[in-house]
Amino acid sequence: MKLPAPLLELLSTTFGPHGCFTDEAERIAYAYDNSRRNAMPDAVVFAQDHAQIETLIQACREHHVPVIARGRGTNTTGATVPVDGGVVVSFERMNRILRIDPDNRLAVVEPGVLNGDLQRELAPHGFFWPPDPTSSPWCSIGGNLACNSAGPRTVKYGSPRENTLGLRAVAGTGEGFRCGTYTSKGATGYDLTRLLIGSEGTLALITEATLKLTPKPSGLRTLRATYRNVSSAAHAVARIMAQPVTPCALEFIDDVALKLAHDHGGENVPLTGAMLMIEVDGEPDTLASAVDAVSRAAQGEGLEELRVAQTSEETQALWSARKALSPAQRTISPNKINEDVVVPVNRLPDLVEGIRRLSKKHDVLIVTFGHAGNGNLHVNLLPRDDAERERAHACLAEVFALVISLEGTLSGEHGIGLVKREFMPLALQASTLGLMRNVKAAFDPDGILNPGKLLP
Amino acid sequence: MKLPAPLLELLSTTFGPHGCFTDEAERIAYAYDNSRRNAMPDAVVFAQDHAQIETLIQACREHHVPVIARGRGTNTTGATVPVDGGVVVSFERMNRILRIDPDNRLAVVEPGVLNGDLQRELAPHGFFWPPDPTSSPWCSIGGNLACNSAGPRTVKYGSPRENTLGLRAVAGTGEGFRCGTYTSKGATGYDLTRLLIGSEGTLALITEATLKLTPKPSGLRTLRATYRNVSSAAHAVARIMAQPVTPCALEFIDDVALKLAHDHGGENVPLTGAMLMIEVDGEPDTLASAVDAVSRAAQGEGLEELRVAQTSEETQALWSARKALSPAQRTISPNKINEDVVVPVNRLPDLVEGIRRLSKKHDVLIVTFGHAGNGNLHVNLLPRDDAERERAHACLAEVFALVISLEGTLSGEHGIGLVKREFMPLALQASTLGLMRNVKAAFDPDGILNPGKLLP
Ligand SMILES: Cc1cc2nc3c(=O)[nH]c(=O)nc-3n(C[C@H](O)[C@H](O)[C@H](O)COP(=O)(O)OP(=O)(O)OC[C@H]3O[C@@H](n4cnc5c(N)ncnc54)[C@H](O)[C@@H]3O)c2cc1C
Ligand SMILES: Cc1cc2nc3c(=O)[nH]c(=O)nc-3n(C[C@H](O)[C@H](O)[C@H](O)COP(=O)(O)OP(=O)(O)OC[C@H]3O[C@@H](n4cnc5c(N)ncnc54)[C@H](O)[C@@H]3O)c2cc1C
Repeated sequence: MKLPAPLLELLSTTFGPHGCFTDEAERIAYAYDNSRRNAMPDAVVFAQDHAQIETLIQACREHHVPVIARGRGTNTTGATVPVDGGVVVSFERMNRILRIDPDNRLAVVEPGVLNGDLQRELAPHGFFWPPDPTSSPWCSIGGNLACNSAGPRTVKYGSPRENTLGLRAVAGTGEGFRCGTYTSKGATGYDLTRLLIGSEGTLALITEATLKLTPKPSGLRTLRATYRNVSSAAHAVARIMAQPVTPCALEFIDDVALKLAHDHGGENVPLTGAMLMIEVDGEPDTLASAVDAVSRAAQGEGLEELRVAQTSEETQALWSARKALSPAQRTISPNKINEDVVVPVNRLPDLVEGIRRLSKKHDVLIVTFGHAGNGNLHVNLLPRDDAERERAHACLAEVFALVISLEGTLSGEHGIGLVKREFMPLALQASTLGLMRNVKAAFDPDGILNPGKLLP
Repeated sequence: MKLPAPLLELLSTTFGPHGCFTDEAERIAYAYDNSRRNAMPDAVVFAQDHAQIETLIQACREHHVPVIARGRGTNTTGATVPVDGGVVVSFERMNRILRIDPDNRLAVVEPGVLNGDLQRELAPHGFFWPPDPTSSPWCSIGGNLACNSAGPRTVKYGSPRENTLGLRAVAGTGEGFRCGTYTSKGATGYDLTRLLIGSEGTLALITEATLKLTPKPSGLRTLRATYRNVSSAAHAVARIMAQPVTPCALEFIDDVALKLAHDHGGENVPLTGAMLMIEVDGEPDTLASAVDAVSRAAQGEGLEELRVAQTSEETQALWSARKALSPAQRTISPNKINEDVVVPVNRLPDLVEGIRRLSKKHDVLIVTFGHAGNGNLHVNLLPRDDAERERAHACLAEVFALVISLEGTLSGEHGIGLVKREFMPLALQASTLGLMRNVKAAFDPDGILNPGKLLP
């Protein structure tokens, strides 16, 4: 596509010489994301305020040109790849924290603020924003909201949907609007805030977010439990979640992943059937009883060892296996297929056993680990060559079918983007998808916002 | 309106002789709700399953006849009053608890289940569903979801939006669909679940809900703090919410309300400037430190007395003022105007002072009390005759303007319904209202679901 001259001119007046680019080098840099998919945009602009986004969308709508919002491109699903060309609008320069308001437990931020930067600014006030993707130092709040991204703490503190009060945004119609509240509850009309969260830039572009803050507990304890096999660990997860003390992290790592981490520099990593990393937080004098409660639940058939870290060095050591995992996988398979399916917690044993069966059947190496307290497992297929890659794709379809049969769904936190669109009819009824298409049309009647994403 | 004969026939075959009524006595009984507004429906049907609702909506759509969902009619906003006639569909017989699943911290219920009945069934499993309107024994889960109803516990545990995983429903198009998940997190398409929550039966009728359960802490402590004046109590609320221990109830009662309660049988009610009722919960050995933390925050300028209940009798006594309040108000003014505005917590002092000013200016008795931890105050105007009623209405518009100027919104938990529609443009931009109208059209293109409600 070549952009119409009047549109190009408007972009360059609106975003200025340092905010609007059409040269190839710049466009290549914004053609791909962490999914490794690739497609060239026709222009890249860097937003600095809300009014620019209104102008941009109105003009692109007039000319039927796609607009693709981009935070930091760390998503895993191709959600920022401009498959139909058009204008990529990067929010990386729109990164001011506008207000930190501890009295009202809220912060107002621009969408380009990095998750990690926000957490650092909140810490001296005694607060944090619960969503904590591992990519926290490199990903933007706008991206977190658009994907409903989460992390270990979600099991106790919720995802962006539970931790956002209001938004300012521009719909695909070109109209700017505010939704939600500055208050911790509200019943004034439809909840557009949550509708935008997880909508992957297909309904409206977020230009400001009012985030709900949580007081940071001053104490934390880390436990590590090893089990004879994945099934006994999965049962322990269900037991832990069925008692009143909710851990602030409950991570699962299977034997294949442990072996991988061990072989690639993690000499402290135990070679065992499966492992749980558990954290509890609270005020210091409540921690001992929390550790007790969780330890009791972790005990049971198949437990091999339960360790409680006594020092921060020990805590580091306990987490080393989890940390070694990402680099280890990359050495085996640069083309790993990275899924984040989710099932009800007590179906985890069926899920891990089913995946084991599929791994054998299709002869593909699969590691599973992740946020077990939410039933959210990263299922990483690690094909080493083209033949394996083909088998991996066949296997993936069966993994999703298994997940759906266990009352689970396609994604817990990564979203759908480009790569999981085709599987949506597995997870959602035709009528549900039809309503989602109506909602899309309600916000973006000409379909210019991030076309080719989320809906099949 | 007279219903077309083919529609009437279909209703009577679909709902059977004991499930479909058109006689006047039955229609009168479903013409009004707790708002005391009134309008006659043309028929009343009693649903027993999802399929009936699909048939009902498809038929009513064909004949352009309104459909008004009704739980138990306890809402305060006229949300179930059939202002344009049509068919009222009561869910009171669709009241089965379909699944209680402690392992996965969820329950699946039909919409007619009473909130109180659900809580009672959950208790032996060690769980509860956080939304706890005072009307709990008489209101339905469907109504709770449709209004995003809440109560004292919301300050710690959230409203229905934070405590619902998925829904089954029938849209105004007549199509049945499922949305959401059985898991505690998900990123698979647009969040239709939260969109339906708070939509007051205007987008879709809910036929099944998957609710997120919370483990019930085994300990609870109750505190009562009295203050020299409303302003010092409001400041204490902000201090309590700015420290890490979040109370599970933080209720405010002003001096006018205290005097009322005292005069009407509440001899234990302290006559003072303002009062806070505070509860903290947790495992028993964590309670002492929680009480300490909250007590420290409650202390400060204007505190008169801080009591911690030591026995369950004392707890009852401490709550007696709050309990005496409702009947007391009714004796003064059967026509009380019952608002539930909400502002950021640290604007509470400005709100209570502003309301005091307006009460004087318009010469109307106003009591304020409510869920201060969420900044959610019940502002009850108590006119005693017609002249006062007129002044009260003028005053109300200024109360809303004040709330908006303090970054608050019209309703924290009661919703908009019929009575607050006209004020929506005060709270929401025209563009936001426009998008809400588009969303309405996306679900209910012919506008047959609960016409005349929520949107102005
Ligand atoms: C090493 C690594 C670890 C990771 N760990 C996790 C994890 O633990 N949990 C997890 O959930 N994810 C994880 N991710 C994925 C990724 O970091 C998250 O999805 C993140 O939220 C994306 O943020 P971003 O700023 O990079 O957004 P982008 O990738 O740039 O965009 C993501 C989506 O958001 C949209 N978007 C961006 N900004 C806006 C805006 N202002 N308005 C509207 N839409 C917008 C885009 O159009 C796109 O659809 C990880 C990624 C990496 C590389
Ligand atoms: C004494 C008393 C105390 C109260 N205390 C509180 C309180 O503390 N907090 C609070 O928030 N509210 C309170 N309320 C208000 C009221 O109880 C709540 O709004 C409650 O949720 C309404 O439930 P219901 O079953 O009576 O619904 P109804 O009044 O019958 O209906 C309310 C709305 O829900 C819709 N609806 C009902 N069922 C469905 C369905 N299946 N699908 C789609 N839409 C549906 C209706 O169309 C209507 O718009 C109180 C009311 C009373 C009388």
